[in-house]
Amino acid sequence: MKLYQSLGPNPMVARIFIAEKGLKVPRHQIDVMQQESRGADFLAINPAGQCPALVLDDGLVISETTAICHYLEELQPDPPLFGRTPAERAETLMWSRRVTLQFTEPLTRSFYYGELAGMVGDHIRVIPEGAEGLKATAQDGLEWLESQLSGDFLAGSRFTLADIQLLAFVNFIPFLRPGEPLEGLPKLFAWRGRVVSRPAVASTMAEDQP
Amino acid sequence: MKLYQSLGPNPMVARIFIAEKGLKVPRHQIDVMQQESRGADFLAINPAGQCPALVLDDGLVISETTAICHYLEELQPDPPLFGRTPAERAETLMWSRRVTLQFTEPLTRSFYYGELAGMVGDHIRVIPEGAEGLKATAQDGLEWLESQLSGDFLAGSRFTLADIQLLAFVNFIPFLRPGEPLEGLPKLFAWRGRVVSRPAVASTMAEDQP
Repeated sequence: MKLYQSLGPNPMVARIFIAEKGLKVPRHQIDVMQQESRGADFLAINPAGQCPALVLDDGLVISETTAICHYLEELQPDPPLFGRTPAERAETLMWSRRVTLQFTEPLTRSFYYGELAGMVGDHIRVIPEGAEGLKATAQDGLEWLESQLSGDFLAGSRFTLADIQLLAFVNFIPFLRPGEPLEGLPKLFAWRGRVVSRPAVASTMAEDQP
Repeated sequence: MKLYQSLGPNPMVARIFIAEKGLKVPRHQIDVMQQESRGADFLAINPAGQCPALVLDDGLVISETTAICHYLEELQPDPPLFGRTPAERAETLMWSRRVTLQFTEPLTRSFYYGELAGMVGDHIRVIPEGAEGLKATAQDGLEWLESQLSGDFLAGSRFTLADIQLLAFVNFIPFLRPGEPLEGLPKLFAWRGRVVSRPAVASTMAEDQP
């Protein structure tokens, strides 16, 4: 297998997931700042032009972070980061989707339409007039997640893919917007402390920034 | 089990998925037009205030369409709508995510911020200035999916959850915007013909509109 990765929160999710599993997957770095992810060579690997992408030994390419992690979970079930039962796995996918829908998706659009508008290239339609509203929508999402956090992690006592996704995007914010993204959100603030103290998370985050 | 469902494309995805599996799941209808999905009774079931939600026999609630379908696939693997192998299941999740990221997500926001702006209630932040750009972004997504369709279905020869998701959202568009949503997209037009001719799809679509 080979993981095509780059700067950015989604590749960070894949790398943390791999580290938590104790897997070793060779990496190939794509320079998104130089638009390498939109070049013909990479588009032949992932026509969506995004990292991460996982190339399997038989040549099949899996892109989209949740799909990559789902494959790796089936390959290496322990420790479980989706879950040990159908219900646990569904709960993880539910929380992963809630994190995406309520937070990472409007956040990412707000970056594309705002802070990154001049850098995203012509493959992304930029909607500058939507940037502020989507930024506020992502904040609404964080506040909703704060209201829902009732255990150590999003899925209660289980640390899952959903926590990794939320962490990677929360930690990416300060690179584009000054300030503490979890200000006024004490439960999430404490949650982040629990997540970043995990050895696999800490070591992966230390590899590169962001 | 009990499926809480309502008008809208995501509940339609769950119902088609259940019909394709040959499962019988009792349903409870939520009246979204009367904001029943935002009432205390339903928020106690799904704090995200959205349908579908699947209540398991032990009381656990799974919301978010992909999570519900993943649970049902594990309960009833045949016919496979995610896949028979880890790689097939990952490919399905990849296509499902591409449909969501590129198309259903900007489409849904464009409806909330546009055609449905007066009806969504105060739980959704409405960004009217973003509606047109997001509508165009959803169209960009359809055109990209058209460019990627190289077999009978999104995942090649396999009919999967990703096709059901794309179909349910494409078919929902004419209820809010006049016209043929697949005009100028001949491969997707033919794809839709293949999908709606499936007995489980046709019978589910005939139950209610939309």
